[in-house]
Amino acid sequence: MSTERSLAVQDYYPDDFAHCYGCGRLNPTGLQIKTRWDGGETVATFSPDPSHIAVPGFVYGGLIASLIDCHAMGTAAAASERAAGRAIGDGPAPRFVTASLRIDYLRPTPLGPTLELRGRAEVASARKVIVDVTVSAAGVVTARGQVVAVRMPQTMAAQR
Amino acid sequence: MSTERSLAVQDYYPDDFAHCYGCGRLNPTGLQIKTRWDGGETVATFSPDPSHIAVPGFVYGGLIASLIDCHAMGTAAAASERAAGRAIGDGPAPRFVTASLRIDYLRPTPLGPTLELRGRAEVASARKVIVDVTVSAAGVVTARGQVVAVRMPQTMAAQR
Repeated sequence: MSTERSLAVQDYYPDDFAHCYGCGRLNPTGLQIKTRWDGGETVATFSPDPSHIAVPGFVYGGLIASLIDCHAMGTAAAASERAAGRAIGDGPAPRFVTASLRIDYLRPTPLGPTLELRGRAEVASARKVIVDVTVSAAGVVTARGQVVAVRMPQTMAAQR
Repeated sequence: MSTERSLAVQDYYPDDFAHCYGCGRLNPTGLQIKTRWDGGETVATFSPDPSHIAVPGFVYGGLIASLIDCHAMGTAAAASERAAGRAIGDGPAPRFVTASLRIDYLRPTPLGPTLELRGRAEVASARKVIVDVTVSAAGVVTARGQVVAVRMPQTMAAQR
């Protein structure tokens, strides 16, 4: 495992942008999703809480959407840096936001197994990255997402 | 305001299906979204918690996805019942689950105003409903969703 494999991109968001409920290291009540490289893909894992259900025994769709969304933004940041010749940890990670999110729920996601998210990015430009994400439980893909990520607009940075 | 206007469809899900993190009345830590008729549309409101942010001052996309998802399922249930000649409260509400979810984040959603969700349903069959949802903050639409809802498969009911 290379050093970069072990670093999570969310740990390199600037402090002012590290409060996201889904992935901010400075949001103590949030989900704290961590996105890491694994070769040409990114990976994140998450263990849902027993309260995170749709019906008893199955994870609710909103959590899956949250995981896909934040892992996609992390993947966009990591891929954008890699495309510019930088690795995670070389400096502050760029903050992307979601322009659109499409999720196909292929089958019910069981509550119990740790979920694995895998991301693949296509860097369209310095400002736009398309990310495909799969969610798996016990080796079975249960949901698939396609996310369009764009660099955070100045209007959002200005209001913090 | 008619009686039906005041009834929330989630209050008529059978107890066994009322534990959803997004909209279950029996999930004390969840969001407890309530979907009501307002003429030909459905409406729900939600006040995000200060922790529900993407960056300071703005609501995170995963919460918006969760609200759209559960309001769409509630809308599908209400519209399915109305298409069958029944009103909310006439009996147990049918439980739909999400087949696919598409969200366009049109602009940042500010933290502060109560969010209003409005849904419109197209009942394709007894098992499938297409729902369009808008999310507004202080009268401005910030996100738009299209959701495909299907009746909950027996495989999910069987595992509870």
